Amino acid sequence: MTKKHNIILQPSGRRGQVDEGTSVRSAARELGVEIESICAENATCGKCMVLVEEGRFEKYNIDSKRENLSSVSNEEAAYFARRPKLLKDKGWEVGQVRLSCQAKIRGDMLINVPEESRGNKQIVRKSAGNRVIEIKPAIRKYLVSMTPPTLERPIADWERLAKGLETSMALVRGTEEKLPRWYDFEIDYACLRTLAKTLREAKWNVTVTVWNDKEVIAVQAGYHEESYGAAVDIGSTTVALYLCNLRTGEVIASESEMNPQIVYGEDVMSRIQYAIDQPDGLEKLHKAIISTLNKLLKQAVKTANMSLRATATLAPDASAGEQSPINEEIASGEEQVRPRNDMKLEEIHEMVLVGNSTMHHVLLNLHPKDLGLAPFVPTIHKSMDIKARELGLHISPSGNIHILPTIASFVGADTSAVILAEEPHKQDENWLLIDIGTNAELVLGNRKRLVCTSTPTGPALEGAHVEYGMRAAPGAMERVHIDETTLEPKYKVVGVDGWNTDHAEFIGHVKGICGSAIIDAVAELFRAGIIDSRGKFKKELSTTRVREGESGWEYVIAWKEETSIGRDIPITQQDVRQIQLAKAALFTAARTLLKRSNLQSPDKIILAGGFGSYIDKEKAMLIGLIPDCELDKVYAVGNAAGDGARIALLNIEKRNEIDTVTRKVERFELPTDPEFQNQFMLATSFPHMSEPFPHIAHLIPNRKADPMAKNFMK
Amino acid sequence: MTKKHNIILQPSGRRGQVDEGTSVRSAARELGVEIESICAENATCGKCMVLVEEGRFEKYNIDSKRENLSSVSNEEAAYFARRPKLLKDKGWEVGQVRLSCQAKIRGDMLINVPEESRGNKQIVRKSAGNRVIEIKPAIRKYLVSMTPPTLERPIADWERLAKGLETSMALVRGTEEKLPRWYDFEIDYACLRTLAKTLREAKWNVTVTVWNDKEVIAVQAGYHEESYGAAVDIGSTTVALYLCNLRTGEVIASESEMNPQIVYGEDVMSRIQYAIDQPDGLEKLHKAIISTLNKLLKQAVKTANMSLRATATLAPDASAGEQSPINEEIASGEEQVRPRNDMKLEEIHEMVLVGNSTMHHVLLNLHPKDLGLAPFVPTIHKSMDIKARELGLHISPSGNIHILPTIASFVGADTSAVILAEEPHKQDENWLLIDIGTNAELVLGNRKRLVCTSTPTGPALEGAHVEYGMRAAPGAMERVHIDETTLEPKYKVVGVDGWNTDHAEFIGHVKGICGSAIIDAVAELFRAGIIDSRGKFKKELSTTRVREGESGWEYVIAWKEETSIGRDIPITQQDVRQIQLAKAALFTAARTLLKRSNLQSPDKIILAGGFGSYIDKEKAMLIGLIPDCELDKVYAVGNAAGDGARIALLNIEKRNEIDTVTRKVERFELPTDPEFQNQFMLATSFPHMSEPFPHIAHLIPNRKADPMAKNFMK
Repeated sequence: MTKKHNIILQPSGRRGQVDEGTSVRSAARELGVEIESICAENATCGKCMVLVEEGRFEKYNIDSKRENLSSVSNEEAAYFARRPKLLKDKGWEVGQVRLSCQAKIRGDMLINVPEESRGNKQIVRKSAGNRVIEIKPAIRKYLVSMTPPTLERPIADWERLAKGLETSMALVRGTEEKLPRWYDFEIDYACLRTLAKTLREAKWNVTVTVWNDKEVIAVQAGYHEESYGAAVDIGSTTVALYLCNLRTGEVIASESEMNPQIVYGEDVMSRIQYAIDQPDGLEKLHKAIISTLNKLLKQAVKTANMSLRATATLAPDASAGEQSPINEEIASGEEQVRPRNDMKLEEIHEMVLVGNSTMHHVLLNLHPKDLGLAPFVPTIHKSMDIKARELGLHISPSGNIHILPTIASFVGADTSAVILAEEPHKQDENWLLIDIGTNAELVLGNRKRLVCTSTPTGPALEGAHVEYGMRAAPGAMERVHIDETTLEPKYKVVGVDGWNTDHAEFIGHVKGICGSAIIDAVAELFRAGIIDSRGKFKKELSTTRVREGESGWEYVIAWKEETSIGRDIPITQQDVRQIQLAKAALFTAARTLLKRSNLQSPDKIILAGGFGSYIDKEKAMLIGLIPDCELDKVYAVGNAAGDGARIALLNIEKRNEIDTVTRKVERFELPTDPEFQNQFMLATSFPHMSEPFPHIAHLIPNRKADPMAKNFMK
Repeated sequence: MTKKHNIILQPSGRRGQVDEGTSVRSAARELGVEIESICAENATCGKCMVLVEEGRFEKYNIDSKRENLSSVSNEEAAYFARRPKLLKDKGWEVGQVRLSCQAKIRGDMLINVPEESRGNKQIVRKSAGNRVIEIKPAIRKYLVSMTPPTLERPIADWERLAKGLETSMALVRGTEEKLPRWYDFEIDYACLRTLAKTLREAKWNVTVTVWNDKEVIAVQAGYHEESYGAAVDIGSTTVALYLCNLRTGEVIASESEMNPQIVYGEDVMSRIQYAIDQPDGLEKLHKAIISTLNKLLKQAVKTANMSLRATATLAPDASAGEQSPINEEIASGEEQVRPRNDMKLEEIHEMVLVGNSTMHHVLLNLHPKDLGLAPFVPTIHKSMDIKARELGLHISPSGNIHILPTIASFVGADTSAVILAEEPHKQDENWLLIDIGTNAELVLGNRKRLVCTSTPTGPALEGAHVEYGMRAAPGAMERVHIDETTLEPKYKVVGVDGWNTDHAEFIGHVKGICGSAIIDAVAELFRAGIIDSRGKFKKELSTTRVREGESGWEYVIAWKEETSIGRDIPITQQDVRQIQLAKAALFTAARTLLKRSNLQSPDKIILAGGFGSYIDKEKAMLIGLIPDCELDKVYAVGNAAGDGARIALLNIEKRNEIDTVTRKVERFELPTDPEFQNQFMLATSFPHMSEPFPHIAHLIPNRKADPMAKNFMK
């Protein structure tokens, strides 16, 4: 009978008995502690390092000593010999630190598994909730070493590789996981075409890239541990790409570009119209986005390589220096060793793409016509997997493009990504997600039910179609405050700290007003009693700032001396109307969802998108842009769509999750709501004529005179 | 409680009780009788017709009358109203004949299910065993009718279609089969691109083509019942294509062409060499075969349409006339109705391809180099599914190309197809399959074990490299007989009945000798004692036909007056040597397999390929081309590889079967057999110096003087 030994693993405290001769890595797995390994237990990757704790551990009644492990193997000794700096920095010596794939149990042991060696890695996403993403990518790499074919064993290249892969995958992933048998693996056709050559050049030692535990999509000579993927949010205005290391979860480059389709139409409706009107309209829109994606990919690889090179220069021993000898060894010393700091486009093996339904359709070269015509129907909701080569995206030709599901014509894959990032479907509370742009998408609900809708908000919220509106760029006003008594304003400008009233250098600096400042300005005009609850300028005020301008009544925020454009910058009656229409649309949409869910107000409001991050939530509530809610329950989460794309890139299980969730989301089209027009008209007032706003009631002017406001005060 | 009624189905005799209101088709299914339906029970396809038998059936104790079914529905009446000829021809009246999807059970019934309405169709393959192919194609069509989208139900096109497809598939296939849910269906990207347009043009009534019960690969407006596929055998010399109706299993066109790669090399080795030597060699070989396949496809469609048109002209009421109104009705009367007799290339949704390993690799644009260099390794054994568009084959762009598995470098997908057609893996007896060409592949075994090998046989068996050899074309000698006493020959010529000695018109007709006649001639030379068992001409014979010619000793079969080439046609010593080498190679290969299987002789020999069909099996055995076996256990089965491809095309389960079988076939490389050289030398003699040939012993000359032959006579 095989001898048993007591093993204790720290810091988890897991313990149990294992057979003599078991490797430490296998023993840990038996006891429920996953230890990393990329090289399929070849003493090559060093990811599985563990520390032997020596001494008498009374608590456990064991004596732990390094002699209770098999002696250091030649491969293991060679691995550590190449890393003197690592040992010195950590203060470790060989024998105390071991490769757990090599060291075999010969007696009782207490073993410490350092953080970096633990499997099932996670990364913390820096957003509202600091949520954790578990790294379970669709793309994984395995080192496969094969016996070369002989006349006696002339099995084909693919089957030889598949058998080796079965073995490597089982070693890396553990035999308890349900993994495919060799004959269940598939190989992408483009990859198959180079297989014979690669295997022979590599002398039958290769790194195999596997997609979704079933399809081989790349075979590289020698040992390569990193896999790359890109998450992309295709906005109507901006395309943002995050290049990620799929092993660690790190974002190694972020790039963004204007969406080139803007030349064919500023918003989605005008692009749909362009595709309808022009015979080659769709083709042009499609090619424009594909070539921008290719450009971003190229830029991202360049950025990533620059930063990798920088790291390599700063700490040669720790990164480049540590990688090269491994490659050298595995690649049989003959091949040119490619330094770590030079990744290539072809090493990007997967992309996850999100975007609104129009961007989604155009990306896929699906005609967006029916998205824009009643009854507003997308071609497909379901998520899709398409080969990069089918879309002409210049990553690995066998690479996979995963596209998140759409929910409705105007609730697209970007909203699916926001849901995935914020997880309303896992909450007991009712959350309201609002992604504000030219179009706003709203999702409301909890683990039991999610409802969604969308509404056009017009360009005002983004600073467009506002007399002096502009994007949030240097020179743009971003915050506005108006003194209730003097009716004098003060403002902040993008890129400069503090209020203009505190800085002489503000003079001659202002260029225009960005979206967040427009919200502020309108809210302040209302709060200061300059406009009434219907949005009309009061004319009998003791200030020269309210005046009849060229296009009607207006309030001057900046005199021409303060600007770089040599003209006064006012908020006009027209501007106020634009904001009223936008906020009425958004508010009515939110109200409709609340009503359909039998809720008075949401427990939490999450504002997604860049715009949501810039606005002052109190002012947004004051003008009635968002429904009433406790102010500290209103969160801005930035580009949650991009976050969602990244989550789907890093964790394949999340793809099923969002597919399932979106299948159940209920969609409401606002125009089909019988009360819509009525509600909309009521919602144009400040804050909203028929709604109580307890959380901002103290800001509402003349509240004592206002019978409704009085109610709020009780 | 629901009322129950007694139902009896003829001719199966199945009986049982079913609920009141069940449709006859569902009732039959409950009782285990499958009735066809293509239109998803829409009263459109008429495939589910049944006959009501009226009267008192004492044996079953029931009264059966047509009133015990729901009355004829409007749709049903309309269906029959369009087919007066059908009713007249069959002598049926409406009410007696019913569409079983429409008629509901209201009382006891005896129902007759005519042959043509029965599901799970089979076809009989006309070959050695007249084996049956069950029709279970990967490609199936379903009529899907959808409710158009509305503002209230704006679900996407794909999901709408998938839900409809789930319903239709369940209706057609029965709820007991494990069929996918709507969200498990996939759609090919090329097909998705046209989906929105097709659905709207079709007014939401479409025929959906599904591959492998999971992927939608075509959506056609209106109702279409036929599906097409092509089975192709890519030989080194000839490419043969069979265009099949996938619903009925019929071959609707057969086409063949010379393999255009012949210009780059006559045999596989020279083509491999060409691919190695020329930088664009593989590309040229690949493009040549792809363009030939496209040409054959085009020809086949033309041929099929011609024959469909011919049928349509002969019986307008029964074919074209019967189809058009249906299309018209379903396509809402607006679309141009396409007559049945005009199928298109894009309606071919699947191809199954087989070929030797070199043809296989070149087809896939995989470099064949390692097939030709030791240790002779293919790139892949496993069967493959590739989109037609990836290979540039001009069928439906979403169509699937299925390629059967290879077994070894010189035992290719054609041999897999032969195994699939002949099924040695289902036998208790040990069968020896020999596919003879420039290269011969051999498979031996039974349900427990299959072994295989291959051997080059040289071109002699195909009539090449023989002094007056030629292919089996008009003017080629195909049979030879030599009189033992006079040593005078007689022969038969391709395209003419009877022996030359019986026909004056033979004079001046002969051009050369084809493969089968060379076997005959050598066998007859041996039997008549003109050559000895070592193949050497005996020089002291009393005939002028044996003489010393320009290139050594020879036997004149045809004097120059008998030929159209104005020269004597002899069999030379060199020709005899060629045959000896070829047959020794083949025989040694067979002997090696028998030895490895511990068998003395096979229970049955199956000769596949054109050559096998032409040779005289007794003569083949006499010269030792094939091992000894009872003569009536030697079968020629023609193009079994083509048959196998067709089986895989018509029955998807067969694809898994052959994948599993080929994974287990054991391969032997002859040169690795230590006795190979020795065995080969022994095998050059006639019939074989160390082997008993009891079944042809009586033909061996001087058998009384020969001690071994004597043994055979006991």
